[in-house]
Amino acid sequence: MIEGLKNRRTVRKYLDKGISDDLLNELLEVACRASNTGNMQLYSIVITRDTEQKKRLAPAHFNQSMVTTAPVVITFCADVNRFVRWCAQRNAEPGFDNFQTFMAAVIDSMLVAQTFCNAAEDNGLGICYLGTTTYNADKIIEILNLPSLVVPITTITLGYPDGLPAQVERLPLEAIVHNEKYKDYTADDINLYYEAKESLAENKKFIVENNKETLAQVFTDVRYTKKNNEYFSEVFLKVLKDQGFM
Amino acid sequence: MIEGLKNRRTVRKYLDKGISDDLLNELLEVACRASNTGNMQLYSIVITRDTEQKKRLAPAHFNQSMVTTAPVVITFCADVNRFVRWCAQRNAEPGFDNFQTFMAAVIDSMLVAQTFCNAAEDNGLGICYLGTTTYNADKIIEILNLPSLVVPITTITLGYPDGLPAQVERLPLEAIVHNEKYKDYTADDINLYYEAKESLAENKKFIVENNKETLAQVFTDVRYTKKNNEYFSEVFLKVLKDQGFM
Repeated sequence: MIEGLKNRRTVRKYLDKGISDDLLNELLEVACRASNTGNMQLYSIVITRDTEQKKRLAPAHFNQSMVTTAPVVITFCADVNRFVRWCAQRNAEPGFDNFQTFMAAVIDSMLVAQTFCNAAEDNGLGICYLGTTTYNADKIIEILNLPSLVVPITTITLGYPDGLPAQVERLPLEAIVHNEKYKDYTADDINLYYEAKESLAENKKFIVENNKETLAQVFTDVRYTKKNNEYFSEVFLKVLKDQGFM
Repeated sequence: MIEGLKNRRTVRKYLDKGISDDLLNELLEVACRASNTGNMQLYSIVITRDTEQKKRLAPAHFNQSMVTTAPVVITFCADVNRFVRWCAQRNAEPGFDNFQTFMAAVIDSMLVAQTFCNAAEDNGLGICYLGTTTYNADKIIEILNLPSLVVPITTITLGYPDGLPAQVERLPLEAIVHNEKYKDYTADDINLYYEAKESLAENKKFIVENNKETLAQVFTDVRYTKKNNEYFSEVFLKVLKDQGFM
């Protein structure tokens, strides 16, 4: 398994080959063995296989092609609704309409999502995470019919890989890991840790393509602008309020 | 790997046996191959092996015994600080001090945490997640010396298992998975899905021990009270503000 995880890559192109119900169900079963908060299982999993439903979801993911080309799209949701309904039916007064419970449900959702992905890749499937889920959560809630106390957190596209994409770089481990206490980064540390990333031909190409001076500017001016980040922060905070978590 | 994930259990008792640097580093390397938002790697990992430091962390985790008895404690943090420092050094104006970027960093942190855990278990180690991290994030920030734009999200204790604990139950898959659209739960659905959980001897014991009428009341009145959830929501929202995300 270590070797598989070491060699993994995100897969955005899939063969025109479905995923059997048996395999999908086995992966879902296994995913639900992941740790979760107090065994409350504060998550739900919405499977999208229907072509029309994929087309409805696509704009919420900024029309990234994988949403319509993958055989299966899966939305992992923070779900406190089911647990609260159980409490209400058992003469128990739930106090879960708050931010702390939302965080627990986010953590639960991500544990099940990533266990699903690790198991899926181990079975020859390829996955791609869509970070757009928290941007357009309001639209996804409508499309998937999510009730109060349910919020979509992440989405994956899933299928058998069509080709082997290149593996992307990572920062060196010493840039990520701190021993005993967080050691803040000096200017020299930053230069050292980002050197390899900045020297890659494909990253230099991004600078030219976007007419920027540095790779960092590609992130701040093009990919993740302050304006967008702030706009989608407002949208998501409104979603949390509307769904009953704030 | 499927079989390993299927049979996994949370491990709270560890042998008095350290984890080699080589194994720990290999697991950390592999964990960092997990997907992340735009390859910004918005996370940091703080390793605690020092006995004194474990003793300092213990109260922040309500003195759960694993914190001091596990050979290794690992805190996974949402970290936007490193990326922002890089931007600032590269003539790029970051706009990452907002809630949407915090969510991306939470997702990144959880993907790396769970990949670490899946790989660790595959190598014979046992883990336990501590949900207390978001409760006492303010205290953990102080103990681990976390700067602005860094927030602890989850903590695991890690070690070689001392014995094989019983596997705990999960809801049936049909309680978790929705096809195409979320199908809200009827009263009958809830009764059906929670029946097995409620009929287990160990869960019935919790009702008696806590002098309650139903298992749900053990959750609402003892384990996750409205009062605590609301108090720790305020604490965590203040942490997000203090660390620069709101």
